[in-house]
Amino acid sequence: MANIYEQMNAAQLDFEIAHLEREVEKIRDKHLALDMARGKPSPEQTDLSRPMLDLINSGSDLEAAGGTAANYGFPDGLPAARALAADLLGVDPANVIVSGSASLHIMFDLVNHGFVKGVAGHEPFYKQGPVKWLCPAPGYDRHFRVTEYLGFENIPVPMGPDGPDMDAVEELVRDPAVKGIWCVPKYANPTGVVYSDEVVRRFAALEPAAPDFRIYWDNAYLVHGFEDEDDPLLDIFSALADAGKTDLVYEFASTSKITFPGSGMSWVAASPADIAEVRSALAVEQVGPEKFTQLAHVLFLHDAAGVHAHMRKHAAIVKPRFDLVADKLEAGLGGLGVATWSHPHGGYFVSFDGPEGSAKKIVATMADLGVKMTGAGATWPGGVDPRDTNIRIAPTYPSLEDLGAALDVFVTVVKLVSARLAREAA
Amino acid sequence: MANIYEQMNAAQLDFEIAHLEREVEKIRDKHLALDMARGKPSPEQTDLSRPMLDLINSGSDLEAAGGTAANYGFPDGLPAARALAADLLGVDPANVIVSGSASLHIMFDLVNHGFVKGVAGHEPFYKQGPVKWLCPAPGYDRHFRVTEYLGFENIPVPMGPDGPDMDAVEELVRDPAVKGIWCVPKYANPTGVVYSDEVVRRFAALEPAAPDFRIYWDNAYLVHGFEDEDDPLLDIFSALADAGKTDLVYEFASTSKITFPGSGMSWVAASPADIAEVRSALAVEQVGPEKFTQLAHVLFLHDAAGVHAHMRKHAAIVKPRFDLVADKLEAGLGGLGVATWSHPHGGYFVSFDGPEGSAKKIVATMADLGVKMTGAGATWPGGVDPRDTNIRIAPTYPSLEDLGAALDVFVTVVKLVSARLAREAA
Repeated sequence: MANIYEQMNAAQLDFEIAHLEREVEKIRDKHLALDMARGKPSPEQTDLSRPMLDLINSGSDLEAAGGTAANYGFPDGLPAARALAADLLGVDPANVIVSGSASLHIMFDLVNHGFVKGVAGHEPFYKQGPVKWLCPAPGYDRHFRVTEYLGFENIPVPMGPDGPDMDAVEELVRDPAVKGIWCVPKYANPTGVVYSDEVVRRFAALEPAAPDFRIYWDNAYLVHGFEDEDDPLLDIFSALADAGKTDLVYEFASTSKITFPGSGMSWVAASPADIAEVRSALAVEQVGPEKFTQLAHVLFLHDAAGVHAHMRKHAAIVKPRFDLVADKLEAGLGGLGVATWSHPHGGYFVSFDGPEGSAKKIVATMADLGVKMTGAGATWPGGVDPRDTNIRIAPTYPSLEDLGAALDVFVTVVKLVSARLAREAA
Repeated sequence: MANIYEQMNAAQLDFEIAHLEREVEKIRDKHLALDMARGKPSPEQTDLSRPMLDLINSGSDLEAAGGTAANYGFPDGLPAARALAADLLGVDPANVIVSGSASLHIMFDLVNHGFVKGVAGHEPFYKQGPVKWLCPAPGYDRHFRVTEYLGFENIPVPMGPDGPDMDAVEELVRDPAVKGIWCVPKYANPTGVVYSDEVVRRFAALEPAAPDFRIYWDNAYLVHGFEDEDDPLLDIFSALADAGKTDLVYEFASTSKITFPGSGMSWVAASPADIAEVRSALAVEQVGPEKFTQLAHVLFLHDAAGVHAHMRKHAAIVKPRFDLVADKLEAGLGGLGVATWSHPHGGYFVSFDGPEGSAKKIVATMADLGVKMTGAGATWPGGVDPRDTNIRIAPTYPSLEDLGAALDVFVTVVKLVSARLAREAA
């Protein structure tokens, strides 16, 4: 669809810009303080888990999760917590290690382990020379920051509607300096994309030149669909088995957006050989994970079915917010040809693309008007969006009323920035 | 005192050994399964903190510690948790970061940070060539394992009755490859030594050749005295200020042996510049610490005074066990001249030294008789006790009855191994 502003002449654009600037001044006078920046659950959502806080008290059986929560021990996690984690991923609990509340920490530990000690008996990365890492983009900024911190070259890989560009991935892994790839296979951050079966199978069949290459399969949103129908994701370990492969994937998940982000459990699953290596790496740095949290989660959620039932309650809160985003963007920008945006069925974000060169300007103007958004470029390695188009909208935390107000501002700002860009080019 | 067995002739020794061997066979027939290996609180001790589990429930104010425990945020810890931690160390809360339950994890993260990124803007250790680390020995095996894991050369430093041999430390830090030292300044693991004011002052005045050298001051047992009178430890940051120094010390502590080892809070304190660096290092790997645990600890312990009051209850449980160790060892081995042992006023261990070449044999014989002890050599870097004399006795976990039975076995085994060694030398 053609950009409506690019079809206007200079006079028309000046008229339109003047009109939009007056709108912006009216917004400025409201002195807003709104926030669409953070992919975090709303208080309404975290309150869903308050009943969990009644399940452990001074009289509780502290061994109810298969081992005592009250003392040292169980570095792999309490048995029932491992069983819950494994049930959610459909893997053997023996191949799961449950750790603290953030799976990002386990991911850091494993990338770091590769850097300082090496993977599967191979030389540490720091002795091998420059390391490269594949970053489907737009993607999760905190993933990219881990590999950037360790001095690796983060290589962006284009994201399509069914996952990363696998032709590009297959080509890039022929370079033995490429040691890993960040993936969010379901309701990806920020695009909302669910990897197709074909993409999952191509990942499982990958032939990396580096024997110490691993796929970091961050299944952060595995139960976070908010439509009636869930979007199935092919199980990566089954796909690996079908491809006759092993020792290629670390899968991660956590309860961060299931219960309380500030107090939960996270876990990693891998092949028997890989999980043994993960265990030995964590044994040096960890004394053991937070075990009362694990016990509480087991008592509250029980199993995968319990998690799914709990997530329906989240969906009921989250879906109206995503619907509001879709409605407001369609009403305000539909048919103008200036922007596209995702229509996710799950996860925490809407991915928005404006005209080339618009994203930084839009986000800066929004901030100026009192509406905080994720920094433009944050979804790209190094914070550099090559076309400066992508903006991540995080609709879950604000109230519906605040979200609606913020989106009204957003629509006006997108139009103004788009019109100005067209005027500059005219 | 002369070793009694070394004064016997061969015939006397053979008679004595035969007698002790009959004693050992009697013990074997009991099929014991006892454990003096682990420095962990007994169930009686962890039960002291069960009331903490009643302090948070579904109706609680989850912001009571100065910020919400229910969502993301507060990567440095909840404000009231930082205040509690700072109060215990006598430092400014602004210079404290509270993290998960194990301070060892923070220590690992900081040593690792030096290795992969460098300290205070200096080159990462891995680019600087071989790194050395000072290890007062006997000491804590898990400290030594961290620096060993990263490939550093762990250099043992002799421990005296008032701390590490500071002449040796001052000499060794003149080597720019020496980047740190592990210290447990109060009720040291395993010797029970409290560093004297003189030793603390010499640490504060240290002139390391390496600008990226740091003292890892693990104040793990700061409130863990079990006698009526506490043993004062000079505050390292005050000593640093007196010496006109800064950016030299990371101090660590945790609630592991105050409440529940499986669920607590740990923290690091440092100079403003150092703590800013710690914060930025942790920001990459951590999303945030476990915050419900922090909230619970604040509600349960309140402040340093609350912690001290709680620790008196631990002391009442722990002291009889240490008294029993002292009594049994004195009754069984006193005056024989074969062994020496520590008489700590706090902490979790008694450090025992038998005849040269005896420790591995004693621990192996104990295991054979069903009594588990810490592996001989574990308290030395690389697990190698150069004289093979040191054994760590951990009396807190077993019941008094089990502890007494285990010590009776220990006394017999020490005598047998000592007599056999004398016989071999005769």
